[in-house]
Amino acid sequence: MPEGSTRSLPDDAGSSTRSGNVSRLRIAISMGDPNGIGPEVLLSCLADAELNNRVEMIPVGSSDVLRTYAAMLQKGGSEGSYPFDLSGVRIEPVEASASFHVVPGKADPLAGKLSMESVARAIPLCHTGAADAMVTCPISKEVIARAGYDFPGHTEFIAERTGGGEVLMMMVSGALRVGLVTSHLPLSRVAEAITEKAVAKTLRLMTSALKKDFGIVRPRIAILGLNPHAGDGGVLGSEEMGIIIPAISSCGDIARWSGPLAADGFFGSGAWKNVDGVVAMYHDQGLAPFKALSFGKGVNVSAGLPIVRTSPDHGTGFDIAGVGKADSSSLKAAILLAADIAERRLASAHT
Amino acid sequence: MPEGSTRSLPDDAGSSTRSGNVSRLRIAISMGDPNGIGPEVLLSCLADAELNNRVEMIPVGSSDVLRTYAAMLQKGGSEGSYPFDLSGVRIEPVEASASFHVVPGKADPLAGKLSMESVARAIPLCHTGAADAMVTCPISKEVIARAGYDFPGHTEFIAERTGGGEVLMMMVSGALRVGLVTSHLPLSRVAEAITEKAVAKTLRLMTSALKKDFGIVRPRIAILGLNPHAGDGGVLGSEEMGIIIPAISSCGDIARWSGPLAADGFFGSGAWKNVDGVVAMYHDQGLAPFKALSFGKGVNVSAGLPIVRTSPDHGTGFDIAGVGKADSSSLKAAILLAADIAERRLASAHT
Repeated sequence: MPEGSTRSLPDDAGSSTRSGNVSRLRIAISMGDPNGIGPEVLLSCLADAELNNRVEMIPVGSSDVLRTYAAMLQKGGSEGSYPFDLSGVRIEPVEASASFHVVPGKADPLAGKLSMESVARAIPLCHTGAADAMVTCPISKEVIARAGYDFPGHTEFIAERTGGGEVLMMMVSGALRVGLVTSHLPLSRVAEAITEKAVAKTLRLMTSALKKDFGIVRPRIAILGLNPHAGDGGVLGSEEMGIIIPAISSCGDIARWSGPLAADGFFGSGAWKNVDGVVAMYHDQGLAPFKALSFGKGVNVSAGLPIVRTSPDHGTGFDIAGVGKADSSSLKAAILLAADIAERRLASAHT
Repeated sequence: MPEGSTRSLPDDAGSSTRSGNVSRLRIAISMGDPNGIGPEVLLSCLADAELNNRVEMIPVGSSDVLRTYAAMLQKGGSEGSYPFDLSGVRIEPVEASASFHVVPGKADPLAGKLSMESVARAIPLCHTGAADAMVTCPISKEVIARAGYDFPGHTEFIAERTGGGEVLMMMVSGALRVGLVTSHLPLSRVAEAITEKAVAKTLRLMTSALKKDFGIVRPRIAILGLNPHAGDGGVLGSEEMGIIIPAISSCGDIARWSGPLAADGFFGSGAWKNVDGVVAMYHDQGLAPFKALSFGKGVNVSAGLPIVRTSPDHGTGFDIAGVGKADSSSLKAAILLAADIAERRLASAHT
């Protein structure tokens, strides 16, 4: 079957259509850096029965790359489950794939170009309705920079391509949902980026996402302080009193707020279990404890975009690429969450 | 029995002396803010049989405050185990205790004075050998500032009083040991405080503490980056390449180093289980994941001091003071770890 053709549905989903009672949502999945673990975790998901029953996966990138990894993993005697015949899978190709040669672990500007073209191609699939959501496998910020892309990451790139609206990077693992006021910013620039406007924007985006994408009517949201001990009454910093508290006040009662709270105590006491969302001020403050608690099963959600986009919470894994050691559970969780959110948005659009 | 007298030993430790085969180490324990949970977690430990068998606890502060809480908790019908008769406990008094009146949860400058006098009094007990180690219950940085103390916290105060030597704030929970390059500093001042000298100093103190206080001959130490994704090859910050890597190099092979590493991936992947120590660049980067993983059982160690000092990893808990809800397990762990370290130092001093 040629590339681009529709994959035949598994037996128990064979009678489903988009207009029927049971719909198999279509999820476009960009392959990520072709020298990283993206292609192999994607292959693992393509072989996953639970995923195939729930969604139609549309890999975006290069069928050659996927076939190269399938052969490599088969030859390596990997214990994981991979589909070694991709003839039934609809793969959406991109231009840069033609001249690319896979070298697992290599930081290659052409790999950066191919990975970004895959993301760029997945976006119009969502816009036109050919896909209901997109999931992105990991890219390397260093490699895409060497390929000439001036974006700190996926999220900013997709936000620009979908209209430049406000977007919130949010990590999800079960009921633990963490949003960041700042994300891919050197630490030296974090404090100056914490403004009343930026905090309030994040609180509003978080509230909206919890309501719209997670179906929580009146969310409870905890806000972390910027400084150690949330400033300890002003002794360790003034941004809590001067910026964060006014920002919370400015949002009124759209959600039930608590904070600003000391990040270490909040995660250590288990207080995170009593809220629907957590707003952290910067990357490591939110993501280090999030990942410690989610044990590699976290999912990244770009909240606020007109399209649904999720991604696994790991990086390119250059050091383990191509040997079948990569764990696909975060990508699987990302695909399932993308389907949940797309379904909720479709349902609310029809009511 | 008057205050200051020696507590009678439990039966099974009755024959032990410092010079015998089994020694009960003496641990001075400053009471913490008398309006916080310090006094009640201390009372709970005073009633703990395992602790009494292992060490002699010497509370430092005010017997009136401890008796007030003992009566309060008894009256409140608290389910915890507290010693309601303190007549056998040797309590080391401080001056400010005379005029103090307990109001659980109240931020009172006199409470700040009393809490700092307790810390100050415990130090010479260690210096003179009247105690083998000290453990400090929580103080409020805000309250001590209002009492006129110009210290960001315990650690800095004790460091100054014991000779101003180099000290490393280190959190310990089982084999997870996290040291910080910067600690009680507003986030806006963290980046400028990350110098090659400061990082190298922390690496050396961490190495020395792991060897001397934890008995690890050639420690494996992971170093986190300052920036998200450890700078992602320079795209998200240059301190990793310009400062942290040279600092590691400057320390030679006194330990087995890995890093600089992305904080979120390091804690999320479980890589922390493969090292003996972790060096984080700032407070929340190290302590938020540490506390998420240690579930309130962490202990703070001031490494590098001439005396042994540990503390529980929670704050004053003003919101739950005086009602018997406070969990004493972190203080208990702090007392046991102080005894372990003191014992190791005594043993190595005798060899």
